[in-house]
Amino acid sequence: MNYHSKSPAELRDIRDDLRVKYRELQAAGLKLDITRGKPSPEQLDLSNGLLHLPGDEFRGPSGIDCRNYGGVSGLPELSEVFAPLFGIDPANLIAAGNSSLDLMNDLTVFGLLHGPVGAEKPWSSGPVKFLCPVPGYDRHFGVTESYGIEMIPVPMRPDGPDVDVCTELVARDPSIKGMWLVPTYSNPTGVTVSDEVARGLVSMAAADDFRIYWDNAYAVHTLVDEPPQPLRILELAAEAGHPDRVYALGSTSKITFAGAGVAFLGASKANLDWFVKYLSLKTIGPDKINQLRHLQFFPDTESVRAHMARHREILAPKFQLVLDILDDRLASSKIASWTRPEGGYFISVDVLDGTAARTVALAKDAGIALTAAGATFPYGRDPNDENIRIAPSYPGTDELTVAMDGFATCALLAATEVLLSEES
Amino acid sequence: MNYHSKSPAELRDIRDDLRVKYRELQAAGLKLDITRGKPSPEQLDLSNGLLHLPGDEFRGPSGIDCRNYGGVSGLPELSEVFAPLFGIDPANLIAAGNSSLDLMNDLTVFGLLHGPVGAEKPWSSGPVKFLCPVPGYDRHFGVTESYGIEMIPVPMRPDGPDVDVCTELVARDPSIKGMWLVPTYSNPTGVTVSDEVARGLVSMAAADDFRIYWDNAYAVHTLVDEPPQPLRILELAAEAGHPDRVYALGSTSKITFAGAGVAFLGASKANLDWFVKYLSLKTIGPDKINQLRHLQFFPDTESVRAHMARHREILAPKFQLVLDILDDRLASSKIASWTRPEGGYFISVDVLDGTAARTVALAKDAGIALTAAGATFPYGRDPNDENIRIAPSYPGTDELTVAMDGFATCALLAATEVLLSEES
Repeated sequence: MNYHSKSPAELRDIRDDLRVKYRELQAAGLKLDITRGKPSPEQLDLSNGLLHLPGDEFRGPSGIDCRNYGGVSGLPELSEVFAPLFGIDPANLIAAGNSSLDLMNDLTVFGLLHGPVGAEKPWSSGPVKFLCPVPGYDRHFGVTESYGIEMIPVPMRPDGPDVDVCTELVARDPSIKGMWLVPTYSNPTGVTVSDEVARGLVSMAAADDFRIYWDNAYAVHTLVDEPPQPLRILELAAEAGHPDRVYALGSTSKITFAGAGVAFLGASKANLDWFVKYLSLKTIGPDKINQLRHLQFFPDTESVRAHMARHREILAPKFQLVLDILDDRLASSKIASWTRPEGGYFISVDVLDGTAARTVALAKDAGIALTAAGATFPYGRDPNDENIRIAPSYPGTDELTVAMDGFATCALLAATEVLLSEES
Repeated sequence: MNYHSKSPAELRDIRDDLRVKYRELQAAGLKLDITRGKPSPEQLDLSNGLLHLPGDEFRGPSGIDCRNYGGVSGLPELSEVFAPLFGIDPANLIAAGNSSLDLMNDLTVFGLLHGPVGAEKPWSSGPVKFLCPVPGYDRHFGVTESYGIEMIPVPMRPDGPDVDVCTELVARDPSIKGMWLVPTYSNPTGVTVSDEVARGLVSMAAADDFRIYWDNAYAVHTLVDEPPQPLRILELAAEAGHPDRVYALGSTSKITFAGAGVAFLGASKANLDWFVKYLSLKTIGPDKINQLRHLQFFPDTESVRAHMARHREILAPKFQLVLDILDDRLASSKIASWTRPEGGYFISVDVLDGTAARTVALAKDAGIALTAAGATFPYGRDPNDENIRIAPSYPGTDELTVAMDGFATCALLAATEVLLSEES
């Protein structure tokens, strides 16, 4: 069934069969959505205990009244629970509000308007560029684009971003001030950065005020028995002589409640002092009651791991289902390839070059919402028009089956269209 | 006992008596703090019901799952409860995170980096200045100072900022882009802006991208039976032909929990669309579970008013206690004057010119922490070195009595020192 070895006549037959299938799909009046990495209601139910907490208690372990102002760095006891999961010393981790994206935005704004630690001038005093491993996370790109920061795509490899490319770029362009990166089960590729790549990135000769946004959003979101140990990235950076290079981020958004969790920032003492100094000017403190609630729910690090095992029980079958359908419907045609992630929230599919946008459009017209083609690239520009991010977490199994089967039909149909147009 | 009519010899006797009193104060080993407008534990207890909410419910009235991502404008039902208290149409009010200061910071950053609605260029493309009614709120000044925005003090009068001065300043300087203002029971003067002043401020001929930060932090924090009706400021601005001039802010920080409340932004449709557009780039949404919790706790507007009446029962005696001590210890000396606020969180004391810093230093050495002298002015510069902000809310009655009595001793002692140095 390899489409590439079919004759035009054979391809036309295949296309015509697919068109019938597609019309049936359209006729089914679907309304399915696999666009975003949202936890399912069943996953959220795992944390419903939070809805009753903190109960009669409103004091943190140290006696602090969590109802009142103050404590801009959050409850240190909560940092202690989560720090080992991020491979960070608790003293280097602060607990914040409900959004790590918000922290990344603040870090960027403070960099632009005040300049990072050790910078002579604010970033905004000149052109600012960020390296963006691709495919990557659209909301990262949204932050940088909104501030007019130029985004430079760099290739993502199976062990992380291409260090050679990054090294060359930052060496010759001191206006490269930052780099986005999801180091564990990356969004959307599922790639986990290797120790070697991590050491390479923190060792590069770059501008003093160059920062890596180490967005460890899926640090504990494994689908396998033997997850990778967290890289002790701050220590690696210090050993490489660049202790302030890394901002490490994380949150409980996909651990507890996506809208009502706790975000964390890990960084060097100098970076944290700098951040807290400016953070203190814009807020009197995070929601410590919500932090206390999480501390009660997760009294120790192991309790988080046990909780994630329950997420895995719900997520793993959905990932397998998607892979089974992709294998079944797309493998023999050779028009697509996809990732087999061991964690995280996404399966990244590369359809036939030049058919991603068409595939997404076909799916949309059949009532299946996919992440916009190009979304995983800066400025929404996928140079090959091939990458589509699949988010299996939210839908139920039945919906997911219908959506993925429909997706496969759309991808195949789009491929036949392009292959036939090449023939003609 | 009018110090100004005393002979040097009499003043020396008074000073010597005060020195004895002061030494006793120092010997008492106090550790008291009346620096910040923090609710007392007793006030926070009023909202302890929140600690058990939302209970088994995690859906908003419209059915939205508050545990998941989304809903960047917050729960509209919560806006409906609070909108009447701010004199704002619910459609013009969004519910956000736990800090209105954070919203004011965002509004400023978006203005600086993107430019407000209708602006041709971002604020940061040229010099930016803000009008600052004085005395005012130090955290406002902290935000603007941190971004290098020049702050221009304007006098606060009993009915609000001096409109004539403001009008003249904005007319001749288009780089004036903003104005801080606490319109109800102002921090620290307790002044409530009159309808006439409000109309004046929204009518001024100013730059198109000039914005008033209408920080209604104490909108419902009354100490009297007949509080002022909230000015319908957005409507006044629209009537004056400047519908986008006003950003109205508020929060439940001093209604429920100071660290774990809900903040609100009220503005024109155009302003809200603009704000939400940029807000959506930095966060996927506020903590809707906390909003739901507040909605359960306050099912209607009247329930907020009833709750505030309980705050008043706790706060009013403390304010009265402070006023009684000021009357008793300072009135006859004629070296100080102070406000008699009908709401809010502060009593503003003007001590003898040139003695505020000395008074605060004396108090500090006796273990009584007062808000830093000058804090109520931009750059911490009180031109007359006279204003001291007293925050009666947090301490218990006994502590407050000791602290205020000590404060009075310090203020009197400082006054005698200055009066005697003028004699010599």
